[in-house]
Amino acid sequence: MSTNRSRIRDVGVEPGELDSGEINAITDVPGVEVGQRSVVHGSHTDPPCVRSGVSVIDPDNQQNLYSDPVTAGTYVLNGYGKSIGIPQIDELGEIETPIVLTNTLSTWDVANAVVSRVLEAHPDATSVNPVVGECNDGVLNDIRGRHISADHVEDAFDALDGSAVEEGSVGAGVGTTGFGWKAGIGSASRMVDGHTVGVLVLTNTGKPDDLRIDGLKINQFVEEDTEATSAGGSIMIIVGTDADLTARQLNRVLQRTSLGLGRVGGIAHHGSGDFALGFANGRGSAISDSDLTILFRGVIEATEEAIYNSLTCSTTIEGFDGKVIEAIPLDSVKRAVASRNSSSND
Amino acid sequence: MSTNRSRIRDVGVEPGELDSGEINAITDVPGVEVGQRSVVHGSHTDPPCVRSGVSVIDPDNQQNLYSDPVTAGTYVLNGYGKSIGIPQIDELGEIETPIVLTNTLSTWDVANAVVSRVLEAHPDATSVNPVVGECNDGVLNDIRGRHISADHVEDAFDALDGSAVEEGSVGAGVGTTGFGWKAGIGSASRMVDGHTVGVLVLTNTGKPDDLRIDGLKINQFVEEDTEATSAGGSIMIIVGTDADLTARQLNRVLQRTSLGLGRVGGIAHHGSGDFALGFANGRGSAISDSDLTILFRGVIEATEEAIYNSLTCSTTIEGFDGKVIEAIPLDSVKRAVASRNSSSND
Amino acid sequence: MSTNRSRIRDVGVEPGELDSGEINAITDVPGVEVGQRSVVHGSHTDPPCVRSGVSVIDPDNQQNLYSDPVTAGTYVLNGYGKSIGIPQIDELGEIETPIVLTNTLSTWDVANAVVSRVLEAHPDATSVNPVVGECNDGVLNDIRGRHISADHVEDAFDALDGSAVEEGSVGAGVGTTGFGWKAGIGSASRMVDGHTVGVLVLTNTGKPDDLRIDGLKINQFVEEDTEATSAGGSIMIIVGTDADLTARQLNRVLQRTSLGLGRVGGIAHHGSGDFALGFANGRGSAISDSDLTILFRGVIEATEEAIYNSLTCSTTIEGFDGKVIEAIPLDSVKRAVASRNSSSND
Amino acid sequence: MSTNRSRIRDVGVEPGELDSGEINAITDVPGVEVGQRSVVHGSHTDPPCVRSGVSVIDPDNQQNLYSDPVTAGTYVLNGYGKSIGIPQIDELGEIETPIVLTNTLSTWDVANAVVSRVLEAHPDATSVNPVVGECNDGVLNDIRGRHISADHVEDAFDALDGSAVEEGSVGAGVGTTGFGWKAGIGSASRMVDGHTVGVLVLTNTGKPDDLRIDGLKINQFVEEDTEATSAGGSIMIIVGTDADLTARQLNRVLQRTSLGLGRVGGIAHHGSGDFALGFANGRGSAISDSDLTILFRGVIEATEEAIYNSLTCSTTIEGFDGKVIEAIPLDSVKRAVASRNSSSND
Repeated sequence: MSTNRSRIRDVGVEPGELDSGEINAITDVPGVEVGQRSVVHGSHTDPPCVRSGVSVIDPDNQQNLYSDPVTAGTYVLNGYGKSIGIPQIDELGEIETPIVLTNTLSTWDVANAVVSRVLEAHPDATSVNPVVGECNDGVLNDIRGRHISADHVEDAFDALDGSAVEEGSVGAGVGTTGFGWKAGIGSASRMVDGHTVGVLVLTNTGKPDDLRIDGLKINQFVEEDTEATSAGGSIMIIVGTDADLTARQLNRVLQRTSLGLGRVGGIAHHGSGDFALGFANGRGSAISDSDLTILFRGVIEATEEAIYNSLTCSTTIEGFDGKVIEAIPLDSVKRAVASRNSSSND
Repeated sequence: MSTNRSRIRDVGVEPGELDSGEINAITDVPGVEVGQRSVVHGSHTDPPCVRSGVSVIDPDNQQNLYSDPVTAGTYVLNGYGKSIGIPQIDELGEIETPIVLTNTLSTWDVANAVVSRVLEAHPDATSVNPVVGECNDGVLNDIRGRHISADHVEDAFDALDGSAVEEGSVGAGVGTTGFGWKAGIGSASRMVDGHTVGVLVLTNTGKPDDLRIDGLKINQFVEEDTEATSAGGSIMIIVGTDADLTARQLNRVLQRTSLGLGRVGGIAHHGSGDFALGFANGRGSAISDSDLTILFRGVIEATEEAIYNSLTCSTTIEGFDGKVIEAIPLDSVKRAVASRNSSSND
Repeated sequence: MSTNRSRIRDVGVEPGELDSGEINAITDVPGVEVGQRSVVHGSHTDPPCVRSGVSVIDPDNQQNLYSDPVTAGTYVLNGYGKSIGIPQIDELGEIETPIVLTNTLSTWDVANAVVSRVLEAHPDATSVNPVVGECNDGVLNDIRGRHISADHVEDAFDALDGSAVEEGSVGAGVGTTGFGWKAGIGSASRMVDGHTVGVLVLTNTGKPDDLRIDGLKINQFVEEDTEATSAGGSIMIIVGTDADLTARQLNRVLQRTSLGLGRVGGIAHHGSGDFALGFANGRGSAISDSDLTILFRGVIEATEEAIYNSLTCSTTIEGFDGKVIEAIPLDSVKRAVASRNSSSND
Repeated sequence: MSTNRSRIRDVGVEPGELDSGEINAITDVPGVEVGQRSVVHGSHTDPPCVRSGVSVIDPDNQQNLYSDPVTAGTYVLNGYGKSIGIPQIDELGEIETPIVLTNTLSTWDVANAVVSRVLEAHPDATSVNPVVGECNDGVLNDIRGRHISADHVEDAFDALDGSAVEEGSVGAGVGTTGFGWKAGIGSASRMVDGHTVGVLVLTNTGKPDDLRIDGLKINQFVEEDTEATSAGGSIMIIVGTDADLTARQLNRVLQRTSLGLGRVGGIAHHGSGDFALGFANGRGSAISDSDLTILFRGVIEATEEAIYNSLTCSTTIEGFDGKVIEAIPLDSVKRAVASRNSSSND
């Protein structure tokens, strides 16, 4: 198995035209922290074979979000999914808990764990709106076993941190696949006129021939054909920004994530539940709609790059039934890039 | 406590102009069954004091809904709630599990119990979309204790039955309140041109002065003022029909439930999460849009009457902190009705 | 024909519990002005028989709305209508022109007239979003003739005024019908915690038996049965407030108008295109969502009362084919009210 | 000015993996016809300089659409536009008139012309829902003059034809621009499991550096830099299929057009009103949702290719103020393609 992995910039691809943030991850957005817990134990021959996990995105420095919610929004590209918490976000335009990602069948256990945390911290709370996104990692993970526990969720919260985001086969991304390859967590950011917009994706969608990396059809540069996976699909796209947006404006930003997915070649197939969830933690001065275009561009570029990172950082994994999902071969990506560079020099 | 309760027709009110079905409940819709489990134990002085439960609405004779889904839709009047399963219904226009109602903080446990049932029945299933609606019964129930277990959900499913629906302080309605009074489960139905439309509500919204029963302002006929409750509010409106509607048509029907709530005097206050969820289990001939008006009228009338029943069938209950929520005094309702009748005879 | 008409308060009905504004019309909202032009000429025997008009609602003192838009929102209860301008309001949350009402088939002529005004005032303008709502007055008016001209629109703008609103068979309401009676323009307002919310309706929906005035089924107090009209139906509900709402909050307010229509007995039948369009012209301090409930109550009560006024102020009119639509008999309304009062005194 | 123009396939680009239809245009969909009227007269020195037009897409063989509507849907990526007719499509899931495209400020005149046609053909009609999409061609056209007349609309209807679609600077596309170049009308189609899906676009969005043609960043192959245009933007994407879809399913298809726009590099900037309008004229057997994926892929590929054609078929045009918008240089596109081919052969 390949374990020596790279972000997409390390192989020479810099998608888009805007500058990335310093870390080039959602944690570039001031106040945003990410915590992850991978749950990996057992194997094909020693069941249960668990290849799953939890990823938490905290929008506001682990402050008391329940008492002091931040502006939030949603965009549903394909609602064939189990994501929790969306109606209240749409109604109130805010979130009162961090966003948590996990596997499809652990969605409700994870929601309950988030609720437990709030109930414990707030002795008078009788209502909580947990926000949980999910992808189906059933190709690799014994998903029916619902192996994610409240302790795993606690571990992910304990790991919250504002520095570089671990990418690839980690957290909720341990067992997901994308464009026929092993995929997982990816992140990127863009500077947008004094603000930052960051994206974290959990990729689990696409077939091999669809993948374009910065316009390059990677599958044409792969030595032998990989076998396409047939997972249920889905992509969760988490967007954060410190621009002081209204929920309506934020929804406009979120809707553009589909343009980033389009650049990568995604088609949002029937079985792929594709959701964007986002927040704006800024408490500064309002942004006029006519100044949103750079945020639109930023979220598109960051979505695109985050998806690439979710692929190039992931490692080959053997699943619960012995099936192996290969990591995307970095030398193929490099060959594709080199090919273009040489031709440009003609 | 008053325990001798009546449906609204028994006190002389017949809302609307359409005929009701034989049972005058959602179970008049061919194929629809309802099962409930009340969870009542402990008391103010012997905690935990549990006043909650589970109500299940099965759209299709307990057939294999997961393999053979029925058309479904949603309408969100006030999305300040935790209802689960809505995005997938909106995307696919169908449900693959029965609809289950419970209290707010047990939403995710109940969802998990529904998922367990499907996983057990379908050894290959790796994805399930449970649909759970909720109201906050925290005025009476020790809601923070999350006392609803998977066994309770099983009991409710075991109780599924197509005959008369138990109403009032039962199932998910054990601990809810409405218009200042004890409220709970109510149901009604209407015959609509050879088809039936039925409604089951879980009422938890409204303040005393707002209540109109068939136009009568009941609070003006109450001897002493009752104390208004200040619960979080919410109403869940479940609609079923055997008309063979598309999801788009069903959504039009569901949107009209708010006109029924309007007749009762509801205002959908900020804290009241008001959702309509519905299904059309007909597999006959398509209905043209121009024939929908009688369905609109039917769902409005059935919603109105179901809310009345959720009040007049409920019984006085003492809650976890010793607070007592009174049942609506039936003699006040009767006095209001009599007053109108006498004046009409002038 | 009856011409001596009353507002609903003049016959003893005060719907709801909140105080109305001084005028009890949408013009109680600071900055709001209304201008109307009735277009009435010809007759059954001297065609064309025109019974139509234009009503303009200006949200902001006839200031330069195009350069300085105000917050706006929409709610579509029944989208079977031709209203213009909604997608841009939904996207940007603002309006850049006053809202204009007219008959269905004159919608585009009226839109063009609004555009002409903006182009003239703004020599550099190359884009305008006119907002035009409509009802089908084809029962009385020679609607196919499209008799509303740009001059009529100009006249309505010239008539803009912040004092009492002319109600009944006036402006866009000259030829509309409601609940079997002649209907038209109606207005009302409510004081809501230091702010005002006002409603102006153009009523063209409902059948006789559905009508409830403050809970009283009026048709039961009518001497002889009136003949139900079979117009296409529709109601346009224009909402204004000086509370400083976001577009998201305003949309929550607008959605509640259906609860007001419900109180009146409306069913939003298939052929009735029912739209709420609104604006918030406040530029003060933001309102928190938890303070919205009184605005919800206010808009419900004002919608209810405005519909009553649209009926009780309208006058009997003979239409293009000689058909006469009667004004609602005020003595029937008075009898209904008196009957209730006498019974309450029992 | 370059006038010798090509479709994108003629310069060696075949986007996607599905087969196109025979014509590779929306007219491959059985029953679909397109008619266009370019309105070009005057010049910079001989005003008014008119560079605009009308494009009509008829979904059903010019049959009596008003009496026999076809299934229709919408998707709004950016609602900052004046498109007419959307609320009724969303409510009823059908269209009763062909879809017509024109310039922004002629939207209402064109709508009126469509209404006139229906009124004339249907002596009893008192309600019509015209569907008009628009782009702002004010960079080249004297848009404020509103030069599109009812006769122009008639001419476009008279030109309805089911053969090859004229592309580029024609009809509503005479005066639009895209990605800094002259753009206009483009079309393409895909075969999808026994059915056809076709797309016709009116392109008016994007800046030069954003453009990717099949992944190739064309601007890097342009000899001298072109000047970016700053038009208001917008893209209208018309989708037709003979698959027998419900309106809900069609809406899922339409939403995927944004993934096609994403492949081209579009960002849906603030000022770009981006709408997809579509119809399904099939009257065969229903399609199950799980069979929609190939339709999703088809609409994405056809959208992508239609946009390319809207660029490569357009010709250089001088506008009302003397400004010249250049056609995209085909030799640059060819160089980009050749560069990739040579590198693939390395």
